[in-house]
Amino acid sequence: MKKPLILVSNDDGITSKGIRTLVEVMKELGEVVVVAPDSPQSGMGHAITIGNTLRLEETDIFEGVTAYECSGTPADCVKLAKHFVLKDRRPDLVVSGINHGSNTAISILYSGTMSAAIEGAIEGMPAIGFSLCDYASDADFSHTREYIKKIAQTVLEKGLTKGVALNVNFPPKRNENIKGIKICRQARAKWQEEFDQRYDPNGRRYFWLAGNFVNFDKGEDNDEWSIANNYVSVVPCIFDLTAHHAISLMNDEWEI
Amino acid sequence: MKKPLILVSNDDGITSKGIRTLVEVMKELGEVVVVAPDSPQSGMGHAITIGNTLRLEETDIFEGVTAYECSGTPADCVKLAKHFVLKDRRPDLVVSGINHGSNTAISILYSGTMSAAIEGAIEGMPAIGFSLCDYASDADFSHTREYIKKIAQTVLEKGLTKGVALNVNFPPKRNENIKGIKICRQARAKWQEEFDQRYDPNGRRYFWLAGNFVNFDKGEDNDEWSIANNYVSVVPCIFDLTAHHAISLMNDEWEI
Repeated sequence: MKKPLILVSNDDGITSKGIRTLVEVMKELGEVVVVAPDSPQSGMGHAITIGNTLRLEETDIFEGVTAYECSGTPADCVKLAKHFVLKDRRPDLVVSGINHGSNTAISILYSGTMSAAIEGAIEGMPAIGFSLCDYASDADFSHTREYIKKIAQTVLEKGLTKGVALNVNFPPKRNENIKGIKICRQARAKWQEEFDQRYDPNGRRYFWLAGNFVNFDKGEDNDEWSIANNYVSVVPCIFDLTAHHAISLMNDEWEI
Repeated sequence: MKKPLILVSNDDGITSKGIRTLVEVMKELGEVVVVAPDSPQSGMGHAITIGNTLRLEETDIFEGVTAYECSGTPADCVKLAKHFVLKDRRPDLVVSGINHGSNTAISILYSGTMSAAIEGAIEGMPAIGFSLCDYASDADFSHTREYIKKIAQTVLEKGLTKGVALNVNFPPKRNENIKGIKICRQARAKWQEEFDQRYDPNGRRYFWLAGNFVNFDKGEDNDEWSIANNYVSVVPCIFDLTAHHAISLMNDEWEI
């Protein structure tokens, strides 16, 4: 049987521990090609590079794996992979991560990790973004391996509904074992921002964006609950942002 | 009656013709505060600035309007406006644009214009992104004014369903008058990318992202159809990306 072709990207950059772990697990499942940013791209959302040029250089940092580092965003990486690096070869699976940090709830909007996965889904390829709810650069990913393998294998076997990408988050390594996988919805939560105002050596003001994550969701069928209760959360995601329920309401209310 | 407070942002930068037009129209409706990028931010999607600092400087380029230019992304601008510039004052409306170029269909994902509006919706404020399907920096916005005023007024009067932002696109100025407003869904379409490979004066390879927009959608209830047929398209948008329909399907199919 032909080995599946698996495209790997991320947003923390090609040298991060998370992508290294993901590449290792994917090598057990198929032929791996990596196209990932040459520098950290956290918080890049679905940004693409349109007013500037892109660099792409081959690198041998992953043993036995074709890999490229790219100056662009995660979405750029997947586009370059599909249209330039792989050309006529179509990946059987696109995976992104493992992100150093949570991408639950509203964080999906800001997430470069998930934008790479969603870019894969836009191209009609089964795609998964993996994130660990631990921001440390030396985070312990050991407990995620068996679940990543299982989820990727399931998607390779059963496929995904067209236009759906998976947002998978893992609880941080705790003493207690992971309880299992929950297929669930995005929690209703937001970031409560604060801006840290400072002055540079020349006396000019600048700001750091800071803030706290606030979960408003009292349900148990969402990703935040799953992570808090030591489950792996799997949220199927779409890129049609239409509020379909609002269309007929607005047609009633608006006199147009 | 107290004048409504209207926050204006965009992604083409604070000096663009589009935001100037939007500020002029909004001045007819209320008190306007502008916080917009100091440089073009097209294609920034929902990017936020987390690994770097932000600058914010007051500017008097809009007569009689409090305005700030910010070094960050459109999403940063709305966050800074809410948490620093306006502090205890809550905008009655957040508007973004007018974008020089279409934000129909899948382009919403890459759109800085819409990320500013969605950021407003996340904060629970009625929010609208306006885009003109004409990329020229000197595009003719004259036919958009009456519709922008009408839509903004309607939202100020009737509000929006919580968590919903509007993605409004205008046809380019044509000989024929605009036929009206269509409340519709996001068309199923994508960008068919191509990468233009070049070499710099030092012989190093680089790429330009290029591509064509391809509309797969045969329906008439979507934004692409509306623009092609000279209607203003209004798509109500959400930021819950959950594919709710896929959850029970996956629970059936996956043996977990």
